[in-house]
Amino acid sequence: MSLGADELFAQAFREAAEDVDRGFDPKLVQEAYIGTLGVGGGQLGNFSAVVGDAAGLTGIPITRVENACASSGFAFRSAFLAVASGVCDIALAGGIEKMRDLPPDRLRYWLGVSGDTEWERLAGMTFAGVYALMAQRHIHQYGTKEEQLHMVAVKNHKYGAENPKAQLQRAITLEQAAESAVVCGPLRLYDCCPTSDGASAAILCEATMAKRFTESPIRVLGTGAGTDRLALFLRDDFTTLRASTSASKQAYDMAKVEPKDINLAEVHDCFTIAEIMAYEDLGFCKKGEGGPLIEEGQTYIGGRIPVNVSGGLKAKGHPIGATGVGQIYEITKQLRGKTEKRSRQVPDAKLGLAHNVGGSGATAVVHILGR
Amino acid sequence: MSLGADELFAQAFREAAEDVDRGFDPKLVQEAYIGTLGVGGGQLGNFSAVVGDAAGLTGIPITRVENACASSGFAFRSAFLAVASGVCDIALAGGIEKMRDLPPDRLRYWLGVSGDTEWERLAGMTFAGVYALMAQRHIHQYGTKEEQLHMVAVKNHKYGAENPKAQLQRAITLEQAAESAVVCGPLRLYDCCPTSDGASAAILCEATMAKRFTESPIRVLGTGAGTDRLALFLRDDFTTLRASTSASKQAYDMAKVEPKDINLAEVHDCFTIAEIMAYEDLGFCKKGEGGPLIEEGQTYIGGRIPVNVSGGLKAKGHPIGATGVGQIYEITKQLRGKTEKRSRQVPDAKLGLAHNVGGSGATAVVHILGR
Repeated sequence: MSLGADELFAQAFREAAEDVDRGFDPKLVQEAYIGTLGVGGGQLGNFSAVVGDAAGLTGIPITRVENACASSGFAFRSAFLAVASGVCDIALAGGIEKMRDLPPDRLRYWLGVSGDTEWERLAGMTFAGVYALMAQRHIHQYGTKEEQLHMVAVKNHKYGAENPKAQLQRAITLEQAAESAVVCGPLRLYDCCPTSDGASAAILCEATMAKRFTESPIRVLGTGAGTDRLALFLRDDFTTLRASTSASKQAYDMAKVEPKDINLAEVHDCFTIAEIMAYEDLGFCKKGEGGPLIEEGQTYIGGRIPVNVSGGLKAKGHPIGATGVGQIYEITKQLRGKTEKRSRQVPDAKLGLAHNVGGSGATAVVHILGR
Repeated sequence: MSLGADELFAQAFREAAEDVDRGFDPKLVQEAYIGTLGVGGGQLGNFSAVVGDAAGLTGIPITRVENACASSGFAFRSAFLAVASGVCDIALAGGIEKMRDLPPDRLRYWLGVSGDTEWERLAGMTFAGVYALMAQRHIHQYGTKEEQLHMVAVKNHKYGAENPKAQLQRAITLEQAAESAVVCGPLRLYDCCPTSDGASAAILCEATMAKRFTESPIRVLGTGAGTDRLALFLRDDFTTLRASTSASKQAYDMAKVEPKDINLAEVHDCFTIAEIMAYEDLGFCKKGEGGPLIEEGQTYIGGRIPVNVSGGLKAKGHPIGATGVGQIYEITKQLRGKTEKRSRQVPDAKLGLAHNVGGSGATAVVHILGR
């Protein structure tokens, strides 16, 4: 069954509104921010009104946010700031994408527009190509191994297989990953996330009110966001996303915690190299040591910092505009100790981090949540 | 000379940064929100990063907001909430549109997407057609005269002729308007705003800091936003925009003022009927009395409530994503008593209102500013 974009979002919102211990009337939502890149291939403007209508929220202020693949991470930030400003007490953040609405050539186009158009896309560069350049440089500069890229895929598929919300619920072997087709060297099929339909929703509430609705509110402790130049050739370094380092620094400072305090993270692994770079950019290891970190198994449950135990974009799927708030959903579930299977539950997690990147890294947003 | 979208925005930002008495370093901007509908015909995602780069703001959090023609009104609201939340002290709100990038058929398409697609656009309805339906119903229900629609055009062209920033700097006569070609009955050529390129920028600052930069800070006293169902046939009443009434009520309540306290307003006159409906929806007269209000000259300077003395969308132009913050620019200039020509200066204005509508009215945002 293929739901329309509006129905998908309504479904996600319903689940959020029902995920309380003491009942929540959807009419309590006072403001909403919705992230989406290009529903209907960009054929729908004023889409916030459509989404609001589908969720029964017509009337309240609703704002569409578009920062490429980081759209709903930024929507979450805006919803948080709205509550923090005092203009409302209860806000909704959500995201949505319907990638199957698009024929393959248009799909490539709609992914491509999130990177540079003038110097990259129109010159024939694909989106995988941009991350392949980052991977090549990372391998050259730090001795990262292709096998380490594949190890990220194996981990994320393992956890995806245990997540009923994942798009690709199947484990893969290192051999399968290493022998899969080259998409853009060194990236192979299993180094790339799939294209996905999806929607996500999170309800934010002024802190003192939250206990009215739930026994286990999750606190937003830190928010940070950053930008970088869009075209890769304009950046100083291909092996780091400056938007990510800047966003995470702000979030850590605001939450008054350090990378070592984080118990689990959902990071933006649109390609396996992106997860390795995220380990480094978020401070989970030193620059260049992302490859060894996965090789040592440190980002599995039981390791130093479990990463993407939802399956990540790689296996859970990457419905562009929905991904950021989807990460928030996963962190919330983990902090409450309520994942469906104990095998992918991080034991006694107190602090979680969500890291959402736009396109080839020109935008990024980080949130730190705690219980 | 035709500037690119990024250069247009950089120009607007420069003017904002230089519009201070005591110097303002652009590097002080900590966060930005940019409204745009479809730069490059929607061919550019992650556009917030491009715009930020052009303005020299790379690194800081930048969010693209898209709520059709109300994009930058909503961007201004987000920037205001960001400062109010305490996450930053100085934020930038802006907007941009390059409509001349599009051939005429694509242009119609990109306007059309801001209204309903399934039941209106794909059935052949144009954007003028939607507002023509509203006009027909207004005429039927309240006895509004076509001549009164044209009177709005005459007023706005008069003031546009006196505004060096206006696209159509020429006065027109009532006869010219009445004899112009029918676009979609009863709307004639002069009842419709032009298609425009443009960019806008406004710097928001935490209140106690503002005096560091300027002798005459303008305060944001109220913000309000609303939504409605997108397709016209789903609404109870064609002659009112519920998103506007809801947005203005919130803004009045927050500012603790009433419509009669407002000294001037910039309202969203994409078509002349929209200005007449705005008079009513914003409370400047009773429902159905918008026609007589313009006929009596009450919305000219010297009347009860001067409206669109910038020329409005009608004559100043309507660069979709830039319009909302363009209205804020105009109100700010008026409250400071600094319009270029005394003939279009509202004397001693203390309170101004900006009203920005998305598409056919499914989104709207209202701000009340004071000195």
